[in-house]
Amino acid sequence: VRIALDAMGTDGAPGTEVAGALSALSELDPDVEILLVGDRDRIRAELPPSGGYPEGRVRIVHAPDRILTGEPPATAVRRKPGSSIVVGMRLQKNGEADAFVSAGSTGAVMASSLFLLRPLPGVDRPAIGTLLPTAGPPALMLDAGANVDSKPQHLVQFARLGTIYAQDLMGRVNPRVGLLNIGEEPEKGDELALAAHQLLAASGLNFIGNVEGRDIIQGACDVLVCDGFVGNVLLKFYESVASLIIQLLRKEVQATGSELDLEEVFRVLDYSEYGGAPLLGVNGVSIICHGQSTPKAIRNALGVASRAVRSSMVAHIARELAAPTPPSPEA
Amino acid sequence: VRIALDAMGTDGAPGTEVAGALSALSELDPDVEILLVGDRDRIRAELPPSGGYPEGRVRIVHAPDRILTGEPPATAVRRKPGSSIVVGMRLQKNGEADAFVSAGSTGAVMASSLFLLRPLPGVDRPAIGTLLPTAGPPALMLDAGANVDSKPQHLVQFARLGTIYAQDLMGRVNPRVGLLNIGEEPEKGDELALAAHQLLAASGLNFIGNVEGRDIIQGACDVLVCDGFVGNVLLKFYESVASLIIQLLRKEVQATGSELDLEEVFRVLDYSEYGGAPLLGVNGVSIICHGQSTPKAIRNALGVASRAVRSSMVAHIARELAAPTPPSPEA
Repeated sequence: VRIALDAMGTDGAPGTEVAGALSALSELDPDVEILLVGDRDRIRAELPPSGGYPEGRVRIVHAPDRILTGEPPATAVRRKPGSSIVVGMRLQKNGEADAFVSAGSTGAVMASSLFLLRPLPGVDRPAIGTLLPTAGPPALMLDAGANVDSKPQHLVQFARLGTIYAQDLMGRVNPRVGLLNIGEEPEKGDELALAAHQLLAASGLNFIGNVEGRDIIQGACDVLVCDGFVGNVLLKFYESVASLIIQLLRKEVQATGSELDLEEVFRVLDYSEYGGAPLLGVNGVSIICHGQSTPKAIRNALGVASRAVRSSMVAHIARELAAPTPPSPEA
Repeated sequence: VRIALDAMGTDGAPGTEVAGALSALSELDPDVEILLVGDRDRIRAELPPSGGYPEGRVRIVHAPDRILTGEPPATAVRRKPGSSIVVGMRLQKNGEADAFVSAGSTGAVMASSLFLLRPLPGVDRPAIGTLLPTAGPPALMLDAGANVDSKPQHLVQFARLGTIYAQDLMGRVNPRVGLLNIGEEPEKGDELALAAHQLLAASGLNFIGNVEGRDIIQGACDVLVCDGFVGNVLLKFYESVASLIIQLLRKEVQATGSELDLEEVFRVLDYSEYGGAPLLGVNGVSIICHGQSTPKAIRNALGVASRAVRSSMVAHIARELAAPTPPSPEA
């Protein structure tokens, strides 16, 4: 398994990426290799001296340029062929890598995935899947922001993509699919939700119905589908609520001299535990990380990439999405 | 100030409502009267013996019927003229009360507000405003679920309604209006957000631009406008995140014997502090409470109703919304 890692993506690049990569190598199977993509000299400066790491499993691929967060993604991808994102994605396109992981501009990773890897047949709009912490095991929410103004059939595609991811990477058997909505009854919701509900009910997937905002965190479903607008709002809100609460608590814990171990309590809310968010539905493995990723988050994202490759997730998706809709039991 | 209170709305009705009403009376100005609307005998059974409360400020208005949460709102309102919601709303329509507060079916309170009070001229769709806790003072989000599939001009109306509420009831001067969106730049968002951004920028309101999920909790704005679908998802999600976190912490606090005062830390997240959510844009004061409201939440909702009446909020809204759009500075 060869994973290309954009070494220039995080706020602490390339040190964070190099640290995450070395940590991943010590955990992942010995056949995993990591290609560090970015400024050769700066990456080299972060690597330990020779002998201090498994040199045979690390390779630097020089990329002189870098796409910044503010740049319009599609334009940046076209104009910066030497950027770490484009160089790294090309490694996968050309068969020199099996996966690409980046904490750089989400828009640019998406654009380069669409341009270079291309969507799989049967997928109109690849979606970003992200793990939401719940009281139980995490739920996969998609789309977390790759698309807006989704049509009902896109939500069904998201459900199919998410079902495969939940099976192959999250170990869920017959994953429960929920539709994010504002009421439990099928007749609740906006036009999109009403139509998507009908399609999902007839999809052959394990559709459990509508899931409200309050049900998510109770672990009501394994796969939660929604348009990328509401998904993105929700994701960013969740991240910020957790951090506000920890901030409030930290003050109080210090003031009272309490021995409460906040890290332990909030491990469940810690995004870095979950690693990156896959862009599902493209012909390849493309994992998007937060710009504020820690080495642990990078390590976990590399783990996700490795499992996606090993489970042949992409072939699995291609098979399921290209297949004609299964006949109904009555047919 | 005469406030009609649906005494049959909460899960603990009518005891919760009666307790909340008596608590409000001891806090609010002596000219505030409360009309308890519901089953006469059951309400009477909850009241203290004669002399134990300010009898001159409490009146029972008998309503033999009750609308249940699952009932289709519009039908229920038509078919149950003797329900506490319809009887209470009629008191306001007929000038026997200045406001109505209910923790019953949100849909039925909305439907009866629209049928009996009617929307104000210039308001296409009344919206539910709800206070979101933030690191600073709370923000008013609307619409929290009265409407779905909003058009751009509706979001501008929500912004006008919210601005007046923030001025009159929240004490904000020149309230900052934000548009809930998935990026800061004006060219980010779905079709609705893109068009609403343009209209808001030209509205003459104090529009500060797009607000992302992560900015809400930092107190980025006083008034946050969005379609009721995303607003409702967000609100329910927020309520549930807070309760999950408190649940996680409580376990840990007990395990460690910590002296952390959770109530104190999370007062900021406690919805009952904020009382009810106003339905803004109707010709009257209609305050919607959570079905799980405590006496404290009812008390605070009665306080909101009293302040809305006293500040002549409805007349203020009527004046502003009926007024032609102010000419641009260049005109």
